[in-house]
Amino acid sequence: MSQPSQQMIREIHEQPTAIAETLDAESGNIRELTALLKREGTEYALIAARGTSDNAALYGFYMFGAIASKQAATAAPSLLTCYDSHVDLKKTLVMGVSQSGEATDVIEVLHAGRARGAITCALTNTDDSPICEAADHVVLTHAREEKSVAATKTYTTALAVMHQLATLWGGREDLADDINRVPEWIEETFTTNEPIIADRAERYRFMETCHWLARGMNYCTAKESALKMAECCYVVPSPFSTADFMHGPIASTDWGFPCFVVAPEGPTFASVAETTEALTERNAELAIMSNNAEMLKRANVALPLPNMPEECTPMVAAVLGQLLAYYIALEKGLDPDHPRGLHKVTLTF
Amino acid sequence: MSQPSQQMIREIHEQPTAIAETLDAESGNIRELTALLKREGTEYALIAARGTSDNAALYGFYMFGAIASKQAATAAPSLLTCYDSHVDLKKTLVMGVSQSGEATDVIEVLHAGRARGAITCALTNTDDSPICEAADHVVLTHAREEKSVAATKTYTTALAVMHQLATLWGGREDLADDINRVPEWIEETFTTNEPIIADRAERYRFMETCHWLARGMNYCTAKESALKMAECCYVVPSPFSTADFMHGPIASTDWGFPCFVVAPEGPTFASVAETTEALTERNAELAIMSNNAEMLKRANVALPLPNMPEECTPMVAAVLGQLLAYYIALEKGLDPDHPRGLHKVTLTF
Repeated sequence: MSQPSQQMIREIHEQPTAIAETLDAESGNIRELTALLKREGTEYALIAARGTSDNAALYGFYMFGAIASKQAATAAPSLLTCYDSHVDLKKTLVMGVSQSGEATDVIEVLHAGRARGAITCALTNTDDSPICEAADHVVLTHAREEKSVAATKTYTTALAVMHQLATLWGGREDLADDINRVPEWIEETFTTNEPIIADRAERYRFMETCHWLARGMNYCTAKESALKMAECCYVVPSPFSTADFMHGPIASTDWGFPCFVVAPEGPTFASVAETTEALTERNAELAIMSNNAEMLKRANVALPLPNMPEECTPMVAAVLGQLLAYYIALEKGLDPDHPRGLHKVTLTF
Repeated sequence: MSQPSQQMIREIHEQPTAIAETLDAESGNIRELTALLKREGTEYALIAARGTSDNAALYGFYMFGAIASKQAATAAPSLLTCYDSHVDLKKTLVMGVSQSGEATDVIEVLHAGRARGAITCALTNTDDSPICEAADHVVLTHAREEKSVAATKTYTTALAVMHQLATLWGGREDLADDINRVPEWIEETFTTNEPIIADRAERYRFMETCHWLARGMNYCTAKESALKMAECCYVVPSPFSTADFMHGPIASTDWGFPCFVVAPEGPTFASVAETTEALTERNAELAIMSNNAEMLKRANVALPLPNMPEECTPMVAAVLGQLLAYYIALEKGLDPDHPRGLHKVTLTF
């Protein structure tokens, strides 16, 4: 194994603190914004982002829909930047998510939102970045500087903000406080799972492709973990909603094909369990993240999740995906801190 | 090469007729529905689908946004089927797309739409199927029976319907008639490209993975073509929006990595061209579908598109993706009519 690289793993471990600091600093700000949304009768949300931030947007999409009962959509920036669509955005929260605050097409979506009557909000890790000027409201993640090219703490802190926005906008005070336990659940998963992952990563030394499978709230986990593996391990992973997966891609999955499955107990558990059954029948290779003991018995590599509300699991499961990407990269002799051909900030026009 | 299988290729060739018959039979119906949408002031669209139909929904999403200037979203059925979200759907067109008309969770979304005040519409190839009872309005694709497990003509006919819905809902009569030329553009692409694809398919005999890349209107083409290859060729393809691709996955792409790129002239051309330049620098292997002569010069395998409006290209480019999946499957000694472990109808709960 090559000499462990330090930035990414250090930042992975900073996540409990980063989430706690983000909540401490921003909860008042988020309460004010959600009070405004309720006062204005805002019923729609449009979230623009790219790359890792787009996976945070996807979590927001599910949280706004499932928890706040708002009609949400992840924006296709090209509609506004390439096609000049004249969609009406009144009664809509337009959010732009960008850790660097420099994502050009995300900023364009905020400009369009402002011009068309939306309430606009930037979610970024970078105070005084261009995105902050494009939005009426700014919510910051307090993850401090992220040096690793592979985003980790800026992702989970953005999820924590989305959780608070959705629970408070939806008047779900009964769920809002759960977020404060996420740092300890992440610490618990370091204790339980990091030794397992460090030990078992060698199994994936020659893995060239894999599936990441999840449903609902954790669809973002599948996409984000696949992205981490693509960036750090140079494997070609395919992320799927298990519902879509059963409609075709399962055909290319048979004996020994590696599948990483996020299967927490909760509203989507039965649906994901159906997929793991089908994969077991095909003798696929299963790494399973779950807090259901029977489910974990199906796994070639079992990664136990804490018992926790399903809507908080994406923040903990994301950490498992980061640890897998990191330790598998090391086994492959790669430097996860310096992926080939990637820069920290990508500008899209 | 194994004995060519007959169903899929026959159905691929039936597409010009199927599209023409769909337009003949449904244009009056579509005009009535869009007149109703305008009368009711409907400003939002929520489209639910799975698998291939979900890619037709994605085309609808872009068409509704770019051409009709409506705020559209592809539905996450789990929000309603797993999470019981209570989102308000007044002023919203809720569409369910399912060629078989039996997709359980899509039908659930229509039920939810009806209960929450939406105008509901089923788009299906199967008259008197369960989905027709769940919706106030039914638009049929007239693709006749599709025997091949890999959907082809039910996909492009659904796109033709989406084109008509968007252009008429948006009052874009200037664009609406272009659809009538799509059958001849598809015929032209058979003449020009089928011999090229049949001849060059051998190149991909040992391809195990690839990227499908496109942007905007053709993002659906990338996803649908990747799905066809996963179903028929047992490769593991990754479809990306070129904008997302530049934010990470390009890291796993270097010398000789096969990329299929959809690059028609139009609003997204400059963005896609930037990606092909980056791929050329990395000596990736490029199959390019384009009607731009300079762009085609970059290609290892060049597949010329007719000169046509960009918003019609997804129907022609989809046919190229089908032909590639079909001929590569034959080269690999596989039977594209009988993918492993797939059935024509998938039920999701």
